[in-house]
Amino acid sequence: MQIKNTDYRNIIETGFKEAPFISLIGMRLADCGPGWCETELSVASHHLQQNGFVHAGVLTTIADHSAGGAASTIIGADEYVLTLEFKLNLLRSASGEKLRCRAQVLRAGGSFTVVESEVYSINQDKAILSAKGIFTMAVLEK
Amino acid sequence: MQIKNTDYRNIIETGFKEAPFISLIGMRLADCGPGWCETELSVASHHLQQNGFVHAGVLTTIADHSAGGAASTIIGADEYVLTLEFKLNLLRSASGEKLRCRAQVLRAGGSFTVVESEVYSINQDKAILSAKGIFTMAVLEK
Amino acid sequence: MQIKNTDYRNIIETGFKEAPFISLIGMRLADCGPGWCETELSVASHHLQQNGFVHAGVLTTIADHSAGGAASTIIGADEYVLTLEFKLNLLRSASGEKLRCRAQVLRAGGSFTVVESEVYSINQDKAILSAKGIFTMAVLEK
Amino acid sequence: MQIKNTDYRNIIETGFKEAPFISLIGMRLADCGPGWCETELSVASHHLQQNGFVHAGVLTTIADHSAGGAASTIIGADEYVLTLEFKLNLLRSASGEKLRCRAQVLRAGGSFTVVESEVYSINQDKAILSAKGIFTMAVLEK
Repeated sequence: MQIKNTDYRNIIETGFKEAPFISLIGMRLADCGPGWCETELSVASHHLQQNGFVHAGVLTTIADHSAGGAASTIIGADEYVLTLEFKLNLLRSASGEKLRCRAQVLRAGGSFTVVESEVYSINQDKAILSAKGIFTMAVLEK
Repeated sequence: MQIKNTDYRNIIETGFKEAPFISLIGMRLADCGPGWCETELSVASHHLQQNGFVHAGVLTTIADHSAGGAASTIIGADEYVLTLEFKLNLLRSASGEKLRCRAQVLRAGGSFTVVESEVYSINQDKAILSAKGIFTMAVLEK
Repeated sequence: MQIKNTDYRNIIETGFKEAPFISLIGMRLADCGPGWCETELSVASHHLQQNGFVHAGVLTTIADHSAGGAASTIIGADEYVLTLEFKLNLLRSASGEKLRCRAQVLRAGGSFTVVESEVYSINQDKAILSAKGIFTMAVLEK
Repeated sequence: MQIKNTDYRNIIETGFKEAPFISLIGMRLADCGPGWCETELSVASHHLQQNGFVHAGVLTTIADHSAGGAASTIIGADEYVLTLEFKLNLLRSASGEKLRCRAQVLRAGGSFTVVESEVYSINQDKAILSAKGIFTMAVLEK
């Protein structure tokens, strides 16, 4: 996948540091490359809903912010991305120690980018696909 | 809309109190009735993303948990609901003082319920529709 | 809702006449105005799937093409719209004599427009909401 | 992926033969196996919309019916599937000679199944990913 700005990792790291909600959630960048981004989150009790599973809002946050990271690897230095819409399927309840998300660009465009995110629930090194989503992101000028 | 359990408000209040992520986010029940649920959240800096807008994860949390509340008003005493999937369109950036969400059941079914949620960003008594989503929820036995 | 081109009805009629799949399906424009479009289709046996209900592909076609019509009422004379993505919930099986669709713009933008479509199954003057969807459409220059 | 009924191919073939809209569209089963289904359609002028591309309704029909086929490979002899909802992203305009769709079950469940469909536009043996969607299907008793 073609990149426009070799400094993309720095932009993504800034996008994590400067987003207060990401700090509140405790989500971190694991790695990224052209067209993809991987993130992690250590599950704590404040991430759960009333049945003891990770709340859909947490799964969405990691899926969405990772998608934004993946889309940001291929934009120009004077551009940024904003989520227009997404769909998330909650495939299996997440209750592990850790979440890991892999976001991958499906289609790179000048004015919008489509990204797919998979969120895995990890427990004792066993990964279960907990949620999968598709995100449409606008590519905007700063 | 027909109800099976007149004590639904108590069940929804419990679903808010016993969900740690809802406390972390600071979301509260405003009101509910047969087939609908309204909620509120006072926006604080920890809800924002890197551009100063409310994070999509926060909008999703209020939209999803309100949808769960609306679906819970029409289920039996021995049932509960779980989100299977949803789509959210982020229509206008949310940056007001408060979010208000209205969730309304579109279709009530024995094994799944479809709910629509609208999230308004409220600033000096002016409400702007910031996000709209449709949620499919499974109705399960306890 | 603000319009840029008072000749929008002519553009929508052309978009119906020049789309061979719309002729194959037998869908027709009922009416349109700034930000909305209504269409109809007389249900025939070739619209059905194997259980005797209208096929999801037919419901999508009427929902999508009506959404395109609604979005086209508010664009400039040198613009056109293309569907980027959509979600459709099939709320109740459609098996009536006629389908009627109402599409309404939720958010009008310079580069993309969000439209909601409701498809009703009509039988002996009784209308049932069979499907509801949200469409994101790109606004492009000719 | 575990199967409950070894005669699944026959059921899927019947689901194609007995669906009049599938005949109208001209879509055919290419192959299927446990948890997946592949289909094809030779593009003709009556499949197009007003810009000369394959209509979203056609892409949806092939994506949805293939998803139903994939879900049908893993159900019992006394069960059938019905689409509850889906989302489709139109990634690149389809204008080739042929469409090919691959549907794959993401999550198999007792009461609902989640399937992913990819629609490729094929031109002179070059395949382009034109659309990708996720479908939630109810598993019902006959």
